[in-house]
Amino acid sequence: MEAEQRHLQQTFNEEIPLTKAIGIQVVEYTGSSLTLSAPLANNTNHKRTAFGGSLYSVAILAGWGLIYLRLRALGLAGNIVIQESHVRYIHPVSDDIAVTCHIESEAYFQKFINFFNRRDIARISLVSLIEQNSTIALEFEGNYVVNA
Amino acid sequence: MEAEQRHLQQTFNEEIPLTKAIGIQVVEYTGSSLTLSAPLANNTNHKRTAFGGSLYSVAILAGWGLIYLRLRALGLAGNIVIQESHVRYIHPVSDDIAVTCHIESEAYFQKFINFFNRRDIARISLVSLIEQNSTIALEFEGNYVVNA
Repeated sequence: MEAEQRHLQQTFNEEIPLTKAIGIQVVEYTGSSLTLSAPLANNTNHKRTAFGGSLYSVAILAGWGLIYLRLRALGLAGNIVIQESHVRYIHPVSDDIAVTCHIESEAYFQKFINFFNRRDIARISLVSLIEQNSTIALEFEGNYVVNA
Repeated sequence: MEAEQRHLQQTFNEEIPLTKAIGIQVVEYTGSSLTLSAPLANNTNHKRTAFGGSLYSVAILAGWGLIYLRLRALGLAGNIVIQESHVRYIHPVSDDIAVTCHIESEAYFQKFINFFNRRDIARISLVSLIEQNSTIALEFEGNYVVNA
């Protein structure tokens, strides 16, 4: 999976320049989950915790990147865009940011792929979580649309 | 209001360094609304439209800045944080980003201030909109909490 991680890192850096300012790093792709990180230093706010917009940006890209790598593994290319999101900020993040998005149900993902193959457009909802000291600091739910 | 705009610009630049990378500019504060902008060039994505995380960051700060300036006008200081948000991406943004947050009801705002004065903590929900060619491209609703 390391070549896939490197490819995604390069995609972020080349296609979305703000990811460099945020300092987004592709940490781990397991096939069913993707973890991204960003240093707190690049993303502080007035309270010296992580800026809500930075947390959101890393969370939205964890979902985007997971869909991107899974489609790529199937030889599929699609244009992935966010349609709607809902975020709960549960605790401030006072350390480096780490976000994980994982596919909770492979059956649900397969349904999304089947729909995409039939219609050339499909929607998928994914949850990205930021944990800190083993408790959830942020919960992001994103609805993504993929067009062929 | 221009001194207030300059003060907010300085606050963003000094307290939230990512605002410089995004290129956030305080465009207009009327007392009941705040408009922020950011150049598309700093915030492109893989489709050469605006990155969803950038749009979100400008939207969240329009609400934050409006609360901040209104509290300041009343001689109040509070720690303003986002608690929850809901975003709908209606159209891609293919031009420079402009976000406006406005207080829809002064009565609602006054209730928030009264609550804050009594309890030292209060919640307020604000909507930020991004328009493009006179249609709404993004609708952001944020629930903010202010602590004395």
